[in-house]
Amino acid sequence: MKNSALSALGRRTTEPPISWLMHAALSHPKLISLAAGFTDNASLPVAGVRAALNQVLRSPGTGRPALQYGITAGDSTLRQLTAEHLRKLDFQTAVSSSSLVLEPKSRTRTKNEDEKTYSPERLLITSGSQQLLYLTTEALCDEGDIVLVEDPTYFVYLGILQSRGLRARGVRLERDGLNLAHLEKVLTSLKRSGKLRRVKLLYLVSYFQNPTGVTTSFGKKRALLKLLKQFERASGHPIYLLEDAAYRELRFAGQDVPSALMVPGAAERVIYAGTFSKPFATGVRVGYGILPQPLFASVKHIKGNHDFGTSNLLQHLVARTLASGIYEQQVARLQKRYAHKASVMKRVLEKHFPSGVGWWEPEGGLYFWARLPRHIPAGVKSKVFRAALKNDVLYVPGELCYADDPTRRKPNHEMRISFGNASEADIREGIQRLGKVLRKLVKPDVQRRSKIWSELDDAKSW
Amino acid sequence: MKNSALSALGRRTTEPPISWLMHAALSHPKLISLAAGFTDNASLPVAGVRAALNQVLRSPGTGRPALQYGITAGDSTLRQLTAEHLRKLDFQTAVSSSSLVLEPKSRTRTKNEDEKTYSPERLLITSGSQQLLYLTTEALCDEGDIVLVEDPTYFVYLGILQSRGLRARGVRLERDGLNLAHLEKVLTSLKRSGKLRRVKLLYLVSYFQNPTGVTTSFGKKRALLKLLKQFERASGHPIYLLEDAAYRELRFAGQDVPSALMVPGAAERVIYAGTFSKPFATGVRVGYGILPQPLFASVKHIKGNHDFGTSNLLQHLVARTLASGIYEQQVARLQKRYAHKASVMKRVLEKHFPSGVGWWEPEGGLYFWARLPRHIPAGVKSKVFRAALKNDVLYVPGELCYADDPTRRKPNHEMRISFGNASEADIREGIQRLGKVLRKLVKPDVQRRSKIWSELDDAKSW
Repeated sequence: MKNSALSALGRRTTEPPISWLMHAALSHPKLISLAAGFTDNASLPVAGVRAALNQVLRSPGTGRPALQYGITAGDSTLRQLTAEHLRKLDFQTAVSSSSLVLEPKSRTRTKNEDEKTYSPERLLITSGSQQLLYLTTEALCDEGDIVLVEDPTYFVYLGILQSRGLRARGVRLERDGLNLAHLEKVLTSLKRSGKLRRVKLLYLVSYFQNPTGVTTSFGKKRALLKLLKQFERASGHPIYLLEDAAYRELRFAGQDVPSALMVPGAAERVIYAGTFSKPFATGVRVGYGILPQPLFASVKHIKGNHDFGTSNLLQHLVARTLASGIYEQQVARLQKRYAHKASVMKRVLEKHFPSGVGWWEPEGGLYFWARLPRHIPAGVKSKVFRAALKNDVLYVPGELCYADDPTRRKPNHEMRISFGNASEADIREGIQRLGKVLRKLVKPDVQRRSKIWSELDDAKSW
Repeated sequence: MKNSALSALGRRTTEPPISWLMHAALSHPKLISLAAGFTDNASLPVAGVRAALNQVLRSPGTGRPALQYGITAGDSTLRQLTAEHLRKLDFQTAVSSSSLVLEPKSRTRTKNEDEKTYSPERLLITSGSQQLLYLTTEALCDEGDIVLVEDPTYFVYLGILQSRGLRARGVRLERDGLNLAHLEKVLTSLKRSGKLRRVKLLYLVSYFQNPTGVTTSFGKKRALLKLLKQFERASGHPIYLLEDAAYRELRFAGQDVPSALMVPGAAERVIYAGTFSKPFATGVRVGYGILPQPLFASVKHIKGNHDFGTSNLLQHLVARTLASGIYEQQVARLQKRYAHKASVMKRVLEKHFPSGVGWWEPEGGLYFWARLPRHIPAGVKSKVFRAALKNDVLYVPGELCYADDPTRRKPNHEMRISFGNASEADIREGIQRLGKVLRKLVKPDVQRRSKIWSELDDAKSW
C-alpha cells in the first residue's frame, strides 16, 4: 500500500519534541532531569485524596452519582464551587492589592456584570486545562488561521497549532507580559497584509508562564484587550483572549494578579482556562474554562463528541476536596514546598553558573528561565546540550518554545530549568553539573548578569 | 459584530438530538425515560471502587504514582492487564465455541501474529471508548471524506461525522450484522463514481449494537474485512475497520463472538475500541483501543495534544479492579441484572404492545429495537412520540440513528427502548404507557409480528 490513509491532521501530528527529551532520560539512568514539567512527587496529597474519596463513596447515596454518567458541561456542584473559587481568587486580589491598576469598582463593573462573568452556566469542566485549550482552538480556528502567542510560549500549545495546520505569530515578551508596542505592530502588519480576518485569538500563559516564569500584569491585560478590540472592525469578528492560568495558584512570592475576566466590559472576549491538576494532584485531570457565548455552547458540544464529559468520579472527588478544605490545605503546602525548592535552585544557580549566564527568578510556578550569551547556542544540537546530557543532566532547550515565525530568527541560547519534580538533592547536584558544563563553554564575562537581560528590551535583538 | 469567530467545525457542531430528549425529560417530572443510555444505577459498584481506591492509596508508595502525571499511551500495568483481558475474551470464545466459523488456529494464525496483535505496545488508554472514536476519526478523515456505517448506527458517532464535515454512507443491517451484498454494492458504486479514495474506514458497533441490539457474526467480520481489502487497490490506501465493542461484556445470553482482531491476517486493518465504563462504572471513564501502525502513533500524538493522557488515578483504579477480581465480579453481577431487566421488558412488551409492532430481542447490551408498521411514523414530530411524551414516557426515535444518505429515504417508524437505567417498576409502567399509546395509533394487525421483520430482508424497502 503506497499511501497512508492518515488525514492531513494525522500526518501533521508528530512526536512532540519533549518526548525526545523523555527518551533521552530513559537511556541515561543516572540522569537528573530538570526538564520535566512534573510536579513535586513527595507532596502529592495521598492521604487527602483517600479521605475525600472515602467521603464520596461512603454510601450508595453519595457514591452512585459519582459512578454514573453525568452531563457534558460537568457536575453542577463542582461548577458552582469552581465558579465561587475563581471569583474569590479574583476579588481577594482586587481588594487586597493596592498596586492594582484597577478603576474604582463602582464606576466600571456592575454586580450584574460580575454575576454573569462568574456564572457556573458559563463554566465547563474539562480533562485538565489542556483539553480546554484543544477544544477552544477546534471551535475557533480553521486550517490556515493565525494564533498570536507569546514569544516564547508553551511548547505543547505550539504542537496543537502545528497539528491543526494553524500558524503562530509571536509577540515579544517582557518581564511583566507582552510588549504592547510589538503587539500593535504585529496586528497592524497583519491588517495591512489582509490577514487580520484569520486571527481568532491571542493565547497567553498569564501566570508564571511556561517557559519563562513571566506573570502578565493586570494593566497589560487591560491594555491588550483594548488593543485587540480596536482591530476587530478590520477582522470582522471577535478576537478572543485565551488566558491560560494553569500555574496561577502556585504563587509563592508577591501578590496574585486578577484575571482578565476582571477587566471591565471584557468578559465577552476572555476565555479563562484554569485547572485543579497542577495546584493539587496532576494524576487527577480536572480543569475548567469560563467561556463567553456562543463559544461556550460550541466548545461544550465538541466536548460531547470527544468524551461526553469528564469522569464524574474525579469531579466528585475535586468537589469534595474544595468543600472540605483539603484542596486549600494542599495548595498552601505546595506553595511552601515550591518556595523552598525555588530558593534552593536560586542559591545553587548563583554559586555554580558563570557570570555570563543570567536568569529570571520566578514568583511562582515551576521554572527558572536562563539565558546564555547570544552567540552560545543551547538547543538540542548544541555543544551545551550534548555536554549536559553527557554529564547526566537535562534541561528544556529554549528554542523548542518558539514558534516558527518568518519575521524573526528563532532564539536558541536559552534554557527552561524546572525545580518542580526534582528532589532538593537533585536540584543541587543537577545545577552543579550544568554549571560545570557552562563554565567550560561560556567564557567568563566581566559584564554583569543584568547586561544579558537588557537585550530583552532591545527590539532589534528579537 | 456581524460575524462569529467560530471555525467551520465550531459552526457545524450543534446540540446533539439526544440533548433535546433530555430537556424533554426535565420538563416532565413524572416522565419515565426508556431513552437514556445510562446504566443501571442500583448496581453501580460503590463498595468495590472504594475498596480498590483504598488499596491504591494505602501508602505513598502506591498512591503517589496514581496522583502524578503518566505517559500519554497509558499506565503500563493497565495496558498489560487490558491486553491480557482482551486476549482472554477472544481466545476463550475461540476455544469454547464450536459454532465459530474459525479456521483451525494452527493453519491460519501463528503465535507471533497473536503476540503482535494483542501487544500492550499497540494499546492506547483513552477517556472512555468514545474518545478513541474521536481520535481515530481525526487521525484518518479529512473534511469531505466518507465513513461507512451501519444503517442505523450509534447517533453520537453520526454527530462526530457531521461536526467534522464528513459524510456517512449507510450499509443495510441484518440480524447477524451487515448485509454483505449491500456493502459490496456501496463500495462498487463509490468506486465507479471515483469516491473510493475518500473512504478511510467502516465503523461497526459489533456487539449488541446501539440502537438495534444486533451482534455481528464472526463470519461476517471475516467476510467484510476481505471485501474491504479487495477495494484497497482502487482506494489507494488501507480501508480500516473500526470495531466499537463498547457493549461486548454486557452479554447475558448466548455465546461471545471473537473480535475482528481474530480474523487471520487482518490485525493490520482492525481498530478495536473497548471500554471499562459500560461493563463496570460509567462514572469511571476509562476506555482503550488496539491500533495498527502508523495509526497508533498518530492517534497517541493527537491524544497528547488533547489531554496528555487519561487520569492516572482512574487508570490505577481500573488496574486494581482487574487484578483483584473486583472487575470480574461486577461484570457478572451486571450481566445477571440486565438479563433480568431484559426479561421483564420482554414480558411487558408481549403483554402491552399491539400485534402490529415487532421487536428484536437482545442477547446483551441495553436496548430493544421495536418497529411499527412502515406507514406509522415514530419520529420526534410524530403523533406516536407526542402522545408518548403526553403520557409521560420517552423513547429514542429510530430516525435519529440514521445517517443522512441521498440513496435511501430515512426510516422513521422505529424506536430504541432501553432497560439500562430504568427500574423494574418503571420498565413495567413505561411499557404499559407506551403500549396504550401504540394500541390507539396502530391498528390491530392480523399479520403476525414476524411479518414486520421480513421487510428487513427486502432490499427495495431500504
